[in-house]
Amino acid sequence: MNEGLLVVISAPSGGGKGTILKELFAKDDNLVLSVSATTRSPRPGEEHGKQYYFLQKEEFEELISQGKMLEYAQYVGNYYGTPREPVEQWMAQGKDVVLEIEVQGGAQIKKLMPGCVSIFILPPSMEVLEKRLRDRGTEEDATVRKRLEKAREEIPHAKDYDYVVFNDRLEDAVEDLRAILRAEKRKYHRNETAVERVLDHAETVR
Amino acid sequence: MNEGLLVVISAPSGGGKGTILKELFAKDDNLVLSVSATTRSPRPGEEHGKQYYFLQKEEFEELISQGKMLEYAQYVGNYYGTPREPVEQWMAQGKDVVLEIEVQGGAQIKKLMPGCVSIFILPPSMEVLEKRLRDRGTEEDATVRKRLEKAREEIPHAKDYDYVVFNDRLEDAVEDLRAILRAEKRKYHRNETAVERVLDHAETVR
Repeated sequence: MNEGLLVVISAPSGGGKGTILKELFAKDDNLVLSVSATTRSPRPGEEHGKQYYFLQKEEFEELISQGKMLEYAQYVGNYYGTPREPVEQWMAQGKDVVLEIEVQGGAQIKKLMPGCVSIFILPPSMEVLEKRLRDRGTEEDATVRKRLEKAREEIPHAKDYDYVVFNDRLEDAVEDLRAILRAEKRKYHRNETAVERVLDHAETVR
Repeated sequence: MNEGLLVVISAPSGGGKGTILKELFAKDDNLVLSVSATTRSPRPGEEHGKQYYFLQKEEFEELISQGKMLEYAQYVGNYYGTPREPVEQWMAQGKDVVLEIEVQGGAQIKKLMPGCVSIFILPPSMEVLEKRLRDRGTEEDATVRKRLEKAREEIPHAKDYDYVVFNDRLEDAVEDLRAILRAEKRKYHRNETAVERVLDHAETVR
């Protein structure tokens, strides 16, 4: 069995990543969503190992010092990161593991794990993004403008990713992601052993 | 409009490339098959511009010296090659152009056109390949063995290609090819302008 893929997905604010991933997971039962670790306190309803692994600061720092965090960052006084062990276990079982990473984390991940497949999801245009944010109807004008400003800063980070998927029609975006995963599994470097196996067999039947 | 892809496809003898490509072309109307040029004489029923562009030796050599051949090779005293102009015209129109290339030509093409997408189609095992060759019922035992021997020499060339597709179930192989084309169109380097356009628009609505 081949090792699974490590798939890094980022999207600027309001890029619609959540909806796309939900559809993707519904269609692909070989996918696993990586659970992040954090030192912030659980909110009501959050469970350890589900939304996050909730760790003490000392535990988190020990994992860092032991090289057991694939990536991590600090954000308003708390650590957030990806524990290496569960990711590697899933991959060894042939599962494709999805990491949702902040846009700024893409370059770091690619350096740490050059074998990962990184995908940046972005809106087809700023107008569409603005319309989507406003149509939610839940956000004040100032919040919408702040999110647009943030997206504008984040979009140029697309250059650090292998692929870009435009979130225009939902179904197309989902099919793009599925095609990327399928194609990546066909890369030669992930199939060296399989190619050798074709020839090995040849020896036995000669 | 984005430029089309240049897709190089090779397969060892008896790899079933013909059937796969037929299915692929039936499903993807954005694909164009490149027509090769040759200095060999047309066989009965062959038309200039259809199976091949039939050229005089002097014409072919002039195209070479003018850099108008994407790649070429000599084979039993005749030239075979890919004229650059029609390929580039199709690509400029957004069409994906498929070049069928001899296994040995893969490395050359990749050097000449690093932007191409190269795919190696191979049988799932030598047993399957042998069975398929024998099931045709048209080939003598010696011919089958010669083809198997040739395939064995060709398969290691898979390492010069970006992707490998195993021709196990036909539908899977075709879907693999379609996924590869779709994914390649989502590569960041093919979408720089599209990403910039998202932000350009932002300026106008600010």
